[in-house]
Amino acid sequence: MRIYDIIKKKRDGQELSTEEIRFFVAGVTDGSIPDYQISALCMAIYFRGMSVRETCDLTFAVRDSGEKVNFSAVNGIRVDKHSTGGVGDKTSLVVAPVVASLGVKVAKMSGRGLGHTGGTVDKLEAITGFRTTLSDEDFIRQVNDIGFAIVGQSKQFAPADKKLYALRDVTATVDSMPLIAASIMGKKLAADDDCIVLDVKTGSGSFMKSLDDSKALARLMVDIGKNAGKKMVALITNMDRPLGSAIGNSLEVIEAIETLNGRGPADFTEVCLTLAGYMLSLAGKGSVEECRQAAKRAIGDGSALKKFRETVAAQGGDAGLIDDPSKFVRAKYSHAVKSGRSGYICKSDTEAYGLASLILGAGRNTAEDTIDYGAGILLKRKTGDRVKEGEEIATLFADDRSLFAEAEKKLLSATRIQEKKPQDEPLVYCVIE
Amino acid sequence: MRIYDIIKKKRDGQELSTEEIRFFVAGVTDGSIPDYQISALCMAIYFRGMSVRETCDLTFAVRDSGEKVNFSAVNGIRVDKHSTGGVGDKTSLVVAPVVASLGVKVAKMSGRGLGHTGGTVDKLEAITGFRTTLSDEDFIRQVNDIGFAIVGQSKQFAPADKKLYALRDVTATVDSMPLIAASIMGKKLAADDDCIVLDVKTGSGSFMKSLDDSKALARLMVDIGKNAGKKMVALITNMDRPLGSAIGNSLEVIEAIETLNGRGPADFTEVCLTLAGYMLSLAGKGSVEECRQAAKRAIGDGSALKKFRETVAAQGGDAGLIDDPSKFVRAKYSHAVKSGRSGYICKSDTEAYGLASLILGAGRNTAEDTIDYGAGILLKRKTGDRVKEGEEIATLFADDRSLFAEAEKKLLSATRIQEKKPQDEPLVYCVIE
Repeated sequence: MRIYDIIKKKRDGQELSTEEIRFFVAGVTDGSIPDYQISALCMAIYFRGMSVRETCDLTFAVRDSGEKVNFSAVNGIRVDKHSTGGVGDKTSLVVAPVVASLGVKVAKMSGRGLGHTGGTVDKLEAITGFRTTLSDEDFIRQVNDIGFAIVGQSKQFAPADKKLYALRDVTATVDSMPLIAASIMGKKLAADDDCIVLDVKTGSGSFMKSLDDSKALARLMVDIGKNAGKKMVALITNMDRPLGSAIGNSLEVIEAIETLNGRGPADFTEVCLTLAGYMLSLAGKGSVEECRQAAKRAIGDGSALKKFRETVAAQGGDAGLIDDPSKFVRAKYSHAVKSGRSGYICKSDTEAYGLASLILGAGRNTAEDTIDYGAGILLKRKTGDRVKEGEEIATLFADDRSLFAEAEKKLLSATRIQEKKPQDEPLVYCVIE
Repeated sequence: MRIYDIIKKKRDGQELSTEEIRFFVAGVTDGSIPDYQISALCMAIYFRGMSVRETCDLTFAVRDSGEKVNFSAVNGIRVDKHSTGGVGDKTSLVVAPVVASLGVKVAKMSGRGLGHTGGTVDKLEAITGFRTTLSDEDFIRQVNDIGFAIVGQSKQFAPADKKLYALRDVTATVDSMPLIAASIMGKKLAADDDCIVLDVKTGSGSFMKSLDDSKALARLMVDIGKNAGKKMVALITNMDRPLGSAIGNSLEVIEAIETLNGRGPADFTEVCLTLAGYMLSLAGKGSVEECRQAAKRAIGDGSALKKFRETVAAQGGDAGLIDDPSKFVRAKYSHAVKSGRSGYICKSDTEAYGLASLILGAGRNTAEDTIDYGAGILLKRKTGDRVKEGEEIATLFADDRSLFAEAEKKLLSATRIQEKKPQDEPLVYCVIE
């Protein structure tokens, strides 16, 4: 088998065989295929696409390119939720304890933030003492004991994806549906869950800007997961506005705790309940509506918060912060961003909100950057809200005052205000099963 | 300017600016753009194509990437002929002396053979003593004195093309019209000729298998040449059969001498006269028909042969071989290939004929291979001819008898014999001006 023939075959619009796709991924992993042939094939895939069968083969080859997690020692059904990434997306911090409090296991491996989106591991590290690295034994023991454990991805998951993504990133071949799906699902399937709920974000704050593309990606990922023997469902959720009011690590954890206390923002609470409902239902806990009501009760009676507190304590975090979130590290300075005119806030450039938070020190431009946990943005007004000229629409937080000017400019230019009240948009567009 | 943005722009089907194309070629030449980005862009160009303006910019940037030849010291009009490569194509050895004998200068730089096509430089080196390397001064002096000199490409012509071609060759991006045109014309324009006649081969023995593609490539190259201020014309000639009867270095030089003596195969003589007619006409020597008649006379009265003999002698070659071609080095062994059935020879796989000759030792698989000058094939019957079972259709020549079996098999399986006489196909399909 020669990689040249594989490139030519895909270039000419033919379907690659399972063997050809495995040969390609093996060569990417062991370095025997040069970068210039990998990037040429990625560009050919960009133009010609891949069938569902080819995409499954690619995903499974990527999954099998490195280490895997064996959860067979976990007692009971394991469910995971995966978000494609958004601004202010702290849903894992709420849905995982909700689901775990209802008897379904969540053995979660999360990523760090990069660019305009945050990462759950970074958020948790805003809790003093919280360890995001556990041994396999401790991880599984905690899942069995408490029902929920969460760590960073320390394993060599899907090294083929790491190599492929690095090349795609510099050759304008990221925006290919089968390559995106294989990248996400290849890593996701390396962890051994029974059920997966995908939260596919759509809109200005996500990497899928159009609803049609988001649906197509969700459909493809659900099909891949089912082919791998998983129970799958995908929700297409609105990322044309930040989720909730908090952007930034400490601020988001505080908002998650407020939500677990039943005092969270309406939009964020709604998305969490929907996700938890589907997670529980996939795990066999009843209909989606029944499960949603159960999730609501788990918040109402404090059992979900209790589960979160237990998890934090088990992983070495200061549980006192959960009881009194005012003790979280705060940024030294704050700055009120005021509206320049009266009217209604209409559709905003949500990616720019994420970038404004990054400017304040809450995120990473490159993987080497350090994070300022207290930095970020608290939104006072969001899409659909009425504002008056001079009224505060957001508060910025940073340890360095000089950062406010650029972040404020970014935020204001991303916020359109008009006379007319904008139409309401759904929080969850549709469900792909 | 970033190469990423250039790749993305082309990927999205937009036209690249002159500056962007120059930036790309400069980065290819100095090595500052990594191979994986070059190959991704080549694949994007394969799918999206290039406008004539972009292709001209690419050609000129390739031309300007290395050394150039200055022919300003040559007195008179300089004309060149360039073939895209075929099997048995020894036209340069005939048309150059014909044209030079009629007062038009031919300062020719030729290539070596690779794969199934031969190279003029290799053919000339079959003449004992012939030097294919001359100093610039000697080269120009000979062109001025005799009207014709021919050397190998010793200069660092178009290094960007060398790099690009090597990458395209391993990433399935060779078959792109603008990339092919820029490669051929980038090198061709680095030599400083006034008029260029392109001989674009079409059919099974050329790299352009379809007539439409050949026409499109010819049109593009003619337009590029005109944009560079050259007088241009392209002939689309038939390469669905070998040109003439001889394939292999000594055998082809002997056939060229026979043709200059007025005893050449009809098809080869016809193509030579047509090419010479256009070359002379472009150089201002009259109408194409007048020039064709003049070329015919130059062969008839021996002046073209005399010019060839003069050139061979001036470059150190044994002119006695021209007078008595039986003195050429011959292969030690010959082998008659006989037809397995009776009928008419119909359209043959001409590339396989070239490969059979290569098997016999007449060509190169890789640039490092050495050549056996006496090896090759003499065709006794060609497309359209009637053969009887057991009749000899070709004679193979080699210094190693063990090579005959594989070459014979290749030749026979490439030759289709049927009951019905095939339709005649033109030698010259059309002229692109």
